[in-house]
Amino acid sequence: MKRKLVVAGLAAALSAGIATTAFAQAKPETLVKQRQSAMTLQGKYFGPLGGMLKGAVPYDANVVARNAGYLETLSKMPWDGFAEGTKGVKSAALPVIWSDAAKFKQAQDQFMSAVTALVAASKSGDEAKVKAAIGEVGKNCGSCHDNFREKS
Amino acid sequence: MKRKLVVAGLAAALSAGIATTAFAQAKPETLVKQRQSAMTLQGKYFGPLGGMLKGAVPYDANVVARNAGYLETLSKMPWDGFAEGTKGVKSAALPVIWSDAAKFKQAQDQFMSAVTALVAASKSGDEAKVKAAIGEVGKNCGSCHDNFREKS
Repeated sequence: MKRKLVVAGLAAALSAGIATTAFAQAKPETLVKQRQSAMTLQGKYFGPLGGMLKGAVPYDANVVARNAGYLETLSKMPWDGFAEGTKGVKSAALPVIWSDAAKFKQAQDQFMSAVTALVAASKSGDEAKVKAAIGEVGKNCGSCHDNFREKS
Repeated sequence: MKRKLVVAGLAAALSAGIATTAFAQAKPETLVKQRQSAMTLQGKYFGPLGGMLKGAVPYDANVVARNAGYLETLSKMPWDGFAEGTKGVKSAALPVIWSDAAKFKQAQDQFMSAVTALVAASKSGDEAKVKAAIGEVGKNCGSCHDNFREKS
């Protein structure tokens, strides 16, 4: 019975287009969809923080702390999706991602560091510090898009 | 200078289609894209665990622990995307999500509990326990899709 349900669960997962193979075997199109999904969710949880920085959204320390925690996890997720094999898949990714992999890696590391600093700031209870940290994350979003993403 | 970069970052975020408004003000299409992104990433990180359960992927306790941690965060992300205002947006979501919100909420809670149990199991070092917990998560993926998602 249990086994049947497990198999049903996996079958449903499969029918939902979920890869049950290891990452390395995922189709290029799947990798692109996954990395874009991570970016979409980074936008979901960074968006309100950017709004707080601009004063468009009321400052809420609890939302900052929660979103910063989410972003820490999400900030690790896109990168393995930029596998060499995805070069031919239509997306906004620029060729420099693969021609200057070291520069791209550095941008990833800087972004992840900025998010880690935001998590730390969000625990400080110091609004000015938090806002500076939000600004740093936003700066990293922007410079990474400027360098590695086609202008839309 | 710093301010200029921050503004550039936010402008880039905006041009990338990232909502800088609070969740409640996000467009229905954006909410659907965000909830689908959360499901896509749940697939990315659950997939290999399902593969380990079936024996299609070699068991790796470190991958299980990492993915379980990621899934704990991801398991919280889709639900606010099923706002009433998204009913009219094309997706595989079934109307029962809104007509029986309590049932849908229960399914969410059960799924999140199963993921929390998987995180705990992944810290136990007990492979049999981990595999049973993976099975429970898969069962929840499957039953939720059966009840609330159009067959593809």
